Amino acid sequence: MRAIDRLAILGVGLLGGSLGMAAKAALGCEVVGYGHRRETLDKALENGAIDRAESDPRKAVRGCDLVVLCTPVGVFEGLIGAIGGGVGRSAIVTDVGSTKRSVVALGEKAFGGRFVGSHPMAGSEKRGVEFARADLFVNATCIVTPTPRTDPAAARTVEAFWSALRMRVVSLGPEEHDRRLADVSHLPHAVAAALVAMQEDESLGLCGKGFIDATRIAGGDGGLWRDILLDNADQVKQGLARLRTALAGLEALLDRRDGRALAEWLDAAAARRQRLVEEKLRELNPD
Amino acid sequence: MRAIDRLAILGVGLLGGSLGMAAKAALGCEVVGYGHRRETLDKALENGAIDRAESDPRKAVRGCDLVVLCTPVGVFEGLIGAIGGGVGRSAIVTDVGSTKRSVVALGEKAFGGRFVGSHPMAGSEKRGVEFARADLFVNATCIVTPTPRTDPAAARTVEAFWSALRMRVVSLGPEEHDRRLADVSHLPHAVAAALVAMQEDESLGLCGKGFIDATRIAGGDGGLWRDILLDNADQVKQGLARLRTALAGLEALLDRRDGRALAEWLDAAAARRQRLVEEKLRELNPD
Repeated sequence: MRAIDRLAILGVGLLGGSLGMAAKAALGCEVVGYGHRRETLDKALENGAIDRAESDPRKAVRGCDLVVLCTPVGVFEGLIGAIGGGVGRSAIVTDVGSTKRSVVALGEKAFGGRFVGSHPMAGSEKRGVEFARADLFVNATCIVTPTPRTDPAAARTVEAFWSALRMRVVSLGPEEHDRRLADVSHLPHAVAAALVAMQEDESLGLCGKGFIDATRIAGGDGGLWRDILLDNADQVKQGLARLRTALAGLEALLDRRDGRALAEWLDAAAARRQRLVEEKLRELNPD
Repeated sequence: MRAIDRLAILGVGLLGGSLGMAAKAALGCEVVGYGHRRETLDKALENGAIDRAESDPRKAVRGCDLVVLCTPVGVFEGLIGAIGGGVGRSAIVTDVGSTKRSVVALGEKAFGGRFVGSHPMAGSEKRGVEFARADLFVNATCIVTPTPRTDPAAARTVEAFWSALRMRVVSLGPEEHDRRLADVSHLPHAVAAALVAMQEDESLGLCGKGFIDATRIAGGDGGLWRDILLDNADQVKQGLARLRTALAGLEALLDRRDGRALAEWLDAAAARRQRLVEEKLRELNPD
């Protein structure tokens, strides 16, 4: 791993702020934060998420060994344009975006093989640097998305960076990332929103804890999820087609009143989810 | 409310056992339990869920003021046949089934206006009388489903019974119950199972807490949910058609890349869910 003495975090929200805290604790590096609101930067300085604040992104990245884009994906293009020449020739650039094909294309266009896409799968319903926590990333999964163009040393440095923050690092191509995340994250979010949207008010009043749980992911920020769903629209639509097929299969069982196959289908889903929960518990409590 | 000095509980699982404990505490009545497994009855006697155990349902209901069917809906028909003549001429009969049209039809055929359908919306992922709790029903909703044929005094008694257990009682016709519960409970269950079923193993391994939450309801017992989905198949299918319409609307927004309308749709779902969560919190903590 290349030494990271100075780290730039562009966008100091919950994720960026937590990243600053975690990197300082794990690597002892200097953390420079960029944000477009002075108030946010002051809060980040105050709670120790960053060591130095810059309101000019070009100044923030100067002399940094690693630059992490932590703003919403929708503003990456403008941000990359703004930092352009400020990033040192040997600096490595990564990001924390939830979609990867478009982001990696933008990053490689600007930084070539020194851009390595990342998706640390950690977060919270809370927003803002005031909720930042040094342990946000511990035992969570980070997907790193190198391409044939990626400089292998840059990929190794980015992987080692997330590992140092005690994340479980998985390496996937940007295409595979977007396809799999559409299925396990973006589509379930859209479906949860649709399950809320389709209800009559009188029905909603009768819902139980199951419905509240099932729709929790629909509680996220609309603007953030709009960016994700639009950016990954083709894969979300493919996932939706497969969900429709699964639901059509269920409907066929109902139509032919095949109780045995229906119970088997339901039990198989319950058992598969149970194995998943156990696997996730082992990941979160590896000892 | 008619006095309930002796209560029969037919089927002593988590729900039946909790009902015995809660009724004894609230009304001071004698609770007779029927179950087809001696071991279950012994456990129910041991933890105080019931005062007396009967392995013959006809004997269990004798001299009872209120009889509550607590077995899975699938065995109601046989159970009603078995208790038939044993139920006293002035006794009231109710149940705890998750679907109501078919159950109420069966109950009215056997007991006329003295059958009043109930759906106490309380429960747990756990199963068995060993997990029974006297406070399972506190502040939860119970839907009571009288029909034009129901004896008004019987309906009042059943409503007062659930109220005495500190439930919030709502009165709906069996048709409206089944339609609304299809939308907020049965369909979300089926969709959660389909979201698990459609996944590739490699994708599942990448899921986060959001997916685990969204599919929690798919963790229930397959046999129980088979009965519910088959019994309420027509309404589940109507709900599914409306979900498909909502998802087609989302797909149209993705196709025309209408970011503004997409964010509004997502924010509206998030805000609607948030109001629901606050309403439910007030119901659970009325003070």
